Amino acid sequence: MRFGVLGTGTVGSAVATRLVSLGHEVRMGAREAANPKARDWAAAQGARASAGTFADAAAFGEIVFNCTMGTASLDALHAAGAQNLGGKVLVDVANPLDFSGGTPTLSTAAAGDSLAERIQKAFPGARVVKALNTVTAAVMGHPEKVPGDSDLFIAGNDADAKRRVTALLEEFGWKSVLDLGDVTAARGTEAYLLLWLRLAGTLKTANLNVRVVH
Amino acid sequence: MRFGVLGTGTVGSAVATRLVSLGHEVRMGAREAANPKARDWAAAQGARASAGTFADAAAFGEIVFNCTMGTASLDALHAAGAQNLGGKVLVDVANPLDFSGGTPTLSTAAAGDSLAERIQKAFPGARVVKALNTVTAAVMGHPEKVPGDSDLFIAGNDADAKRRVTALLEEFGWKSVLDLGDVTAARGTEAYLLLWLRLAGTLKTANLNVRVVH
Repeated sequence: MRFGVLGTGTVGSAVATRLVSLGHEVRMGAREAANPKARDWAAAQGARASAGTFADAAAFGEIVFNCTMGTASLDALHAAGAQNLGGKVLVDVANPLDFSGGTPTLSTAAAGDSLAERIQKAFPGARVVKALNTVTAAVMGHPEKVPGDSDLFIAGNDADAKRRVTALLEEFGWKSVLDLGDVTAARGTEAYLLLWLRLAGTLKTANLNVRVVH
Repeated sequence: MRFGVLGTGTVGSAVATRLVSLGHEVRMGAREAANPKARDWAAAQGARASAGTFADAAAFGEIVFNCTMGTASLDALHAAGAQNLGGKVLVDVANPLDFSGGTPTLSTAAAGDSLAERIQKAFPGARVVKALNTVTAAVMGHPEKVPGDSDLFIAGNDADAKRRVTALLEEFGWKSVLDLGDVTAARGTEAYLLLWLRLAGTLKTANLNVRVVH
């Protein structure tokens, strides 16, 4: 399958690399076609990997991953273009974390919504699925890095899109994917990051997750 | 030991009843001394239980629990009186959830702080420990209601206060109490409620918790 991955940072690299390792074709997108991180990544990954602009990557992918910084995601997706996202599953991995004030806050907090909802609203033709935002980049494609079967939360309005993303997450190795309902559930999974950051600081590792017990 | 429990709702009743069952003396506080829920509770619990105003309960307790609604907590604590809270461990169980808009939001979201911090700031003489706010009332004193050893998060500025609260939580049956640091960690444990509400809705039970794996 063909994937577009928007973002060249730790998250974009981790997701894109994992997709290539599973045999998929992946185009990594950046603001500039000449982005050296995307080009180097593609060169290192071989024939199934390529690099381009956000629009190139979105046009290439049958499924598109938003792995940009949360505060830059809407701009990046506008650069990718609504015409390149229409009808496609758009996996939103980003978190609207704002570190500019020193301590992290959610840039969506005052409005009380979520980044995923804003993306869904701005791109009504895309089928947004919030996923993978509750774990660190290294764990996203390698859930075995935390012991036991921890839970991955997904949310979105489109049941078929969530089925496809769940199947892909199972390819990644996730054994427990918990569908929390429509895209407004991203308010919960994004807000959880404020707890996640404290857990990571306390436990002195980012390779952590939670198991829901009930 | 003597405890003051502020609040006569599900949370206050659960905490107060558990404390009595462990042999402690408990005074439940309400806005009005004649509050029928507090009086009925005390009558049903017997000799170790009593009822009074917020100020009566706070004055009585060596440790005080804030089990009021988050949106009313500061008012309740002002009624309890700074002089009755000075030097005492104040366990803040409340969440700043605002359901007035239909979907729940955090009343602290725009400022990006937490209820626990606001309480600590308003009552600098109290030793605030955020605890028990991440589980439903029935689970607070009976962690065995969720299977396995799930985690309870605490936060606060006073190490001795956290040690005393941890010992009390162990009396309740908690086997894993995770200290997330100073009172600002309450931003994380309060924000988690937005996820918790979705988990409860999805799993159709409030008797749930998380186990952190790393």
